Amino acid sequence: MATMEMNQKLDLIFKKFETAKKVVLKAGENVKEKVLIQVDLKDNDISDLVTNCDVECQTMIIEEIKKEYSDDSWLSEENVKDIHSSNLWILDPIDGTTNFVMMKKNYAISLAYYHEGIPMFGLVYDVESDVLYHCIKDQGAFKNDLRLNRLKEHKLSESILDGSLKSLLSFQQAHELNLKVLTRKIRGHRSFGCSSLTICHIAENEKQLFVSNHVKLWDYAAARIVLEEVGGCIETLTSLAKMDENQTCIAASSKNLLDEFKQELVRWN
Amino acid sequence: MATMEMNQKLDLIFKKFETAKKVVLKAGENVKEKVLIQVDLKDNDISDLVTNCDVECQTMIIEEIKKEYSDDSWLSEENVKDIHSSNLWILDPIDGTTNFVMMKKNYAISLAYYHEGIPMFGLVYDVESDVLYHCIKDQGAFKNDLRLNRLKEHKLSESILDGSLKSLLSFQQAHELNLKVLTRKIRGHRSFGCSSLTICHIAENEKQLFVSNHVKLWDYAAARIVLEEVGGCIETLTSLAKMDENQTCIAASSKNLLDEFKQELVRWN
Repeated sequence: MATMEMNQKLDLIFKKFETAKKVVLKAGENVKEKVLIQVDLKDNDISDLVTNCDVECQTMIIEEIKKEYSDDSWLSEENVKDIHSSNLWILDPIDGTTNFVMMKKNYAISLAYYHEGIPMFGLVYDVESDVLYHCIKDQGAFKNDLRLNRLKEHKLSESILDGSLKSLLSFQQAHELNLKVLTRKIRGHRSFGCSSLTICHIAENEKQLFVSNHVKLWDYAAARIVLEEVGGCIETLTSLAKMDENQTCIAASSKNLLDEFKQELVRWN
Repeated sequence: MATMEMNQKLDLIFKKFETAKKVVLKAGENVKEKVLIQVDLKDNDISDLVTNCDVECQTMIIEEIKKEYSDDSWLSEENVKDIHSSNLWILDPIDGTTNFVMMKKNYAISLAYYHEGIPMFGLVYDVESDVLYHCIKDQGAFKNDLRLNRLKEHKLSESILDGSLKSLLSFQQAHELNLKVLTRKIRGHRSFGCSSLTICHIAENEKQLFVSNHVKLWDYAAARIVLEEVGGCIETLTSLAKMDENQTCIAASSKNLLDEFKQELVRWN
């Protein structure tokens, strides 16, 4: 590709990133307002609130970005189409809905942009903490504009593993992981309840491993770029064609750690 | 007891509480400074740092309070004596040491005071978030001086359960809990890695259940009073005489929920 054409492409991607950042922060403000209103709601309205927040947040983000980039395609929980578009946005308007409902924190807006199948940038916004993780391919990853360091190597014995009980039990069954052996090999176990933020926490070295048997592509599309930009890695069985199914996902702070973890997948029977 | 004598006793307990609050906040500042220094340390100095922080924090708190109340007794990880004193302080200088080391947040200073075997007040200080939970018996529980509401009833199906994988697996073995059945009965699973703070999170209605098979008395002595003041309850096998052993602890946002949970302790075999 000629250099000029390449530069034009990159310019466009930077412009899309800037638009995305503004829209995600604005959507976050709206969600925060809704959460404040929630305090006055009766318990049985909670699921309505979640649905409303999800749909409103999604509609707003898509509409705002379509104003400038009307031809681009969208993939999200309610927009599973056009997935082979060369300009694809992948959105999870509220990742961590149980945290959203129960704790009113520890949930995120997650937005990624793929160009010709290649992840170009990602935004994960921890709304209640007002922390924005972002990255543009090959430009590093940032937490509120502070550049994240490249990850150091960790052994499994020095690692915190994050995974919900449900995920770990079904992972145990599907991949013959001996959970008892595992607890003796790791430093600690946590379960945070929000895939995108957990992967970002690996990118900032708070945790080293994430295991899930229940993720969708939109849960981790943005966070994976953040993680990869600091040298971490993520393995999934998900392809664009299969994004509807529940998938296994392992994220790790390094390829070596991921390999060591996989070696610990001891036969259960 | 004569009313005057009673009032004098209560006055003394309030005074002790005020002293305790000042000392815990001051100790927190010191710990925070140490955490900042940690950034410059090499990895192999981490365990030294933890030990130093633990011991320094403990020494400081005990010394400061002994200035005013020299005859009172102390119970903590390194002071397992005088446990039958009628004026007993119970201290965990850093609860959540793995979080402390790996995340530099989500750890707490926990201090409780028991008079004649009855828990009189508790302080749980989330150092990095600068959030102080406190309570005085029969006076309610507070988060940074904001009174916590009395807890509402939750069914197990609406509840978030917090417990580490290690604890849940050993709980499964010791108490014949069917974990797979359990995951279908609860709304979600989390693992936060700090007993005292998790119990306080139940008190503020972010979670509803906490299960641990590895707690010591000093891990929850203060938080239990916070929880009980808002109508929650906690069951342990720990007595003062046995506080050295790892103990089972179940905390719940209500007695009904705790009972429902215990009914789910389905036979494993």
